[in-house]
Amino acid sequence: MASERSVKIEFQRLHGMGEALYDAAHDAFGPVTVRAYAPVGGHEDLLPYLVRRLLENGANSSFVHALLDERVPASAVAADPISAVEAHPDRHAKIPTPKDMYMDRQNSLGRDYSQAADRERHAVALQKVDSETLTAGPIIGGKLKAGTNAQPVTNPFDTTRVLGHVSEATEADIDAAVDAAARAQIAWDRKGGAGRGAVLRAMADALEANMDRLVALLSREAGKTLNDGVAEIREAADFCRYYAMLAERDFGGPTELKGPVGEINQLVLHGRGVFACISPWNFPLAIFTGQIAAALAAGNAVLAKPAEQTPLIAAEAVRLYYKAGLDPDLLALVPGRGETVGAKLVSHPGIDGVAFTGGTDTANLINRSLAARPGAIIPFIAETGGLNGMFVDTTALKEQIIDDVILSAFGSSGQRCSALRLLYVPHDAADALIEGLKGALAAQVVGDPTDPATDIGPVIDADARAMLEAHLKRLEGDAKIIARAELPAGADKGHLFAPTIAEIPTADYLEREVFGPILHVCRYEPSKLKETASKLAARGYGLTLGVHSRIEAFAEEVARLVPAGNVYINRSIIGAVVGVQPFGGEGLSGTGPKAGGPYSLIRYAAEKAISNNISAQGGDPALLNL
Amino acid sequence: MASERSVKIEFQRLHGMGEALYDAAHDAFGPVTVRAYAPVGGHEDLLPYLVRRLLENGANSSFVHALLDERVPASAVAADPISAVEAHPDRHAKIPTPKDMYMDRQNSLGRDYSQAADRERHAVALQKVDSETLTAGPIIGGKLKAGTNAQPVTNPFDTTRVLGHVSEATEADIDAAVDAAARAQIAWDRKGGAGRGAVLRAMADALEANMDRLVALLSREAGKTLNDGVAEIREAADFCRYYAMLAERDFGGPTELKGPVGEINQLVLHGRGVFACISPWNFPLAIFTGQIAAALAAGNAVLAKPAEQTPLIAAEAVRLYYKAGLDPDLLALVPGRGETVGAKLVSHPGIDGVAFTGGTDTANLINRSLAARPGAIIPFIAETGGLNGMFVDTTALKEQIIDDVILSAFGSSGQRCSALRLLYVPHDAADALIEGLKGALAAQVVGDPTDPATDIGPVIDADARAMLEAHLKRLEGDAKIIARAELPAGADKGHLFAPTIAEIPTADYLEREVFGPILHVCRYEPSKLKETASKLAARGYGLTLGVHSRIEAFAEEVARLVPAGNVYINRSIIGAVVGVQPFGGEGLSGTGPKAGGPYSLIRYAAEKAISNNISAQGGDPALLNL
Repeated sequence: MASERSVKIEFQRLHGMGEALYDAAHDAFGPVTVRAYAPVGGHEDLLPYLVRRLLENGANSSFVHALLDERVPASAVAADPISAVEAHPDRHAKIPTPKDMYMDRQNSLGRDYSQAADRERHAVALQKVDSETLTAGPIIGGKLKAGTNAQPVTNPFDTTRVLGHVSEATEADIDAAVDAAARAQIAWDRKGGAGRGAVLRAMADALEANMDRLVALLSREAGKTLNDGVAEIREAADFCRYYAMLAERDFGGPTELKGPVGEINQLVLHGRGVFACISPWNFPLAIFTGQIAAALAAGNAVLAKPAEQTPLIAAEAVRLYYKAGLDPDLLALVPGRGETVGAKLVSHPGIDGVAFTGGTDTANLINRSLAARPGAIIPFIAETGGLNGMFVDTTALKEQIIDDVILSAFGSSGQRCSALRLLYVPHDAADALIEGLKGALAAQVVGDPTDPATDIGPVIDADARAMLEAHLKRLEGDAKIIARAELPAGADKGHLFAPTIAEIPTADYLEREVFGPILHVCRYEPSKLKETASKLAARGYGLTLGVHSRIEAFAEEVARLVPAGNVYINRSIIGAVVGVQPFGGEGLSGTGPKAGGPYSLIRYAAEKAISNNISAQGGDPALLNL
Repeated sequence: MASERSVKIEFQRLHGMGEALYDAAHDAFGPVTVRAYAPVGGHEDLLPYLVRRLLENGANSSFVHALLDERVPASAVAADPISAVEAHPDRHAKIPTPKDMYMDRQNSLGRDYSQAADRERHAVALQKVDSETLTAGPIIGGKLKAGTNAQPVTNPFDTTRVLGHVSEATEADIDAAVDAAARAQIAWDRKGGAGRGAVLRAMADALEANMDRLVALLSREAGKTLNDGVAEIREAADFCRYYAMLAERDFGGPTELKGPVGEINQLVLHGRGVFACISPWNFPLAIFTGQIAAALAAGNAVLAKPAEQTPLIAAEAVRLYYKAGLDPDLLALVPGRGETVGAKLVSHPGIDGVAFTGGTDTANLINRSLAARPGAIIPFIAETGGLNGMFVDTTALKEQIIDDVILSAFGSSGQRCSALRLLYVPHDAADALIEGLKGALAAQVVGDPTDPATDIGPVIDADARAMLEAHLKRLEGDAKIIARAELPAGADKGHLFAPTIAEIPTADYLEREVFGPILHVCRYEPSKLKETASKLAARGYGLTLGVHSRIEAFAEEVARLVPAGNVYINRSIIGAVVGVQPFGGEGLSGTGPKAGGPYSLIRYAAEKAISNNISAQGGDPALLNL
């Protein structure tokens, strides 16, 4: 090629490699200019670099592998890889499309805001939402009750903007909703898993069909960035489809149990009655919709209390359930404060179970209130907080750690129960890693969540921000602030809090979860991993846990030392996908069962065993078929 | 044959039937003496009689069916049925032996006390037990602590006989047991389902190997008849084998979850830590062993508190667990009173879950105590009482009803949570049925449970008897005693209570479960079934429910109207078999999951999801295998 085009060749190679090829070129063309690269770097960079090269070169499909294999003809080695790809224009038959990748249910749709068309759809939807006056309040039997005591709902990024109004459910509303729900539940339960699954699938479709509007609402009411909004809607749709699949599988009809001749023995799962679903503001759509979907899938009716901060998106979800074909009596919205509406719900004698996601203290209050009720002991499914750690060793790849730490600690402004709170870095790698984190934090864009360029939005309200400010003050006093992100101009219109990285000595420093964008870094001595980890374990939480390492035994040891319902290796520790990473913790972090897992629905249901002595009718026909 | 042997033929037939055969005989032999039977009876006997005849004659294998089928040759009709059976001396290849009938696990062994050999084995074992001085007390790390505060354990049939002594566990004993259990649990959990299943299977074998001794102990300490004792030991062995099977199935290793390329996602079940198992005196071996087996199977260690009345059999079971190969640190016995040992157990910070079988009130106390604990919300699995009804209609077969009612109400002296408390009989059939029940009750032998002839033994203690006497007094005052069984001479040595049948107007009469051999009968108007049943449902229990009817729709309607975890059609409502009738109720009757069912172990376990980004190691090898 060079001689044809009259250009000069320059031969580039790594120092110590490619010498045979150089010799061959020299023989063919005479002296060739050579540029030799010598990789330079610290010891901590060497191992991941070498591993990467070994993996690349060792792969069956690698050029080097083919080159050195004498059985591979030169024409195959020199073949044009682009034409090789072009020869197979279609998808590999065994690689499903994203929509079908889960086999047992449809995957949810997304958005790509790097595409102008998707940004444009968002802008239109946002404008539409901004032009509306939104109203939430008790929705009972499908009817929104106009309240006299309506309170404004504001935008956490700009509290001067009132998005709409909400009125609180009264005791009479709750009584009416429980009555209607209890009556409607009987037919819903009898409908069986297949019939209920169809409604839930229609809900998933409705969520996707309304994605742009829901993303806009999530940004305005909950301060979600666009990508967080999309992820949340996808999660809501995934919950609906996953629980529909479980409903069909486990509630599709009786399971025959093996018994003696002359008897038919069956086990049937059925709904318990009316569930109270109490959900948080940090996933005002996904957890709200998911709790309801689980309770409905198992054959229950639901009274749903959204968080005080996010009633508008909840009302929107309830309306979508109705559009999807749900009998309105099966789902009531009862917005309000925990101490009024929440307290009334959990002490109501007509409630047959409670699903709750929120703080550990609130869970304990609810549990005590449920225990104080006369009558039956009802299920309490609580998903609560975490004090989530990530352990890094010196074999891990720095760039990957940094990406995953920033995402885990600051994604959704750190307002995920799964978010990273404590990063453990080995002394040897600490300084370099902390430098990298500083740089990465500086590159994060903090600001208006409706802007596609924003990485980190506001925290939810003034209380949250005040709590974070107080914690920051403490860190400034007796710990060490490593870095804080920049806030944009005008940040004081709302609840922006500058994402912060601080160094603390051990997990003992934190008595409890600090919910927001503050990452704590602890240096540790690898030979004292056990002592270090046991201090984290002693805090009593057990939600998420991260490990970054190329050594499997290290990951296994960390997972043994620190209790956690969800362990993530060499990746971020947030963003659990329904059915893929069933989510939920142990200890102070929750009761189980995990949400979005194969055992999710059992606690929402009761089991009935039916034993029929068919020999009383004359004998067992199965004997005739032997 | 008649002419050969010079005897006279008499032709017997039912009036209206067999005339063609008579004609043929007349043609062949001349006049033949005929005796014609005319069935005589009330209208209520007619339907079941006709149904029985139709079923018999309509069966493919029936003589009448073959006789009337012209395609069947006379030689086949007249073939000797005995030689037909003798031609197939072996078992039908598709009918498994009783031991293998459950396919997925071994069925337990029994005894047949109609056989002299089995009675003899029992007598020898009883003599041996009577010759021993039995001791129970705290067993921690495998060591029985000799107590200074030992209390006598007496025979409920003869309280002058002291069987042995028991000393109560102290707070220090419980602390020591929790510490040892927590340490041992880690390795046990890691052992996995297969390793743990092997120990449980060895326990099942050990129970069977010690059956005669255990039957004797159950009679002496818990007043069980021999057959009740055998049933209890079988249930204990079945629990061990069934949970071993579940442990292998669900705890055998991680479940792979479908996820994106480049990630391995797994779900693993593991033990929660240390369980407190609190069991009742009415199944001092089966429930005691079964709770422990469930907790162990799921990977937990156990502190077991037996009922105050039955510590000796519990100590025996614990020793058998050790003999079966269980690390003694994994199972401690902590005998004592509920208000001392039980209260300490459930408030102990080292306890990670509680399994309880007993009264509804005690369950509520425990639930409140658990809710008051600081820290994690731990699982509470409660199996409690019932107010169990059986509904009979006029299509049911009287003899079968009577058998099943007597067994359900008076088996184990009515001291089963599943026992029948309320029999609903339709007005039309009531008098005849009550007459039949009177006769059947009179035929029951009440007395020494160690005697193979005894049907009904004593109640457990003086408190139980006093409660029954008080209820009887109330029934004598404002209801109607239908019948009482005879007590043998010398009944006042112990806690015999004469089994009683009383008529009451409606379920409202009973505020709560009356635990013992008193059956209440209610007459009902079939057109008012719904109202009648709703009064029973309103009591809030939901354990067992019986229906006797030949009409499927009637059984379905009753099952819809009365909540119950276990529904039994045309059979007794007691004696749930592990894996065949998974046992447990709803409402006031328990929290679920059912014992001996496919979901039994989930609540004893926690779920861990592990997500490993294997593309960080260079890619997903699964792609190469497409």
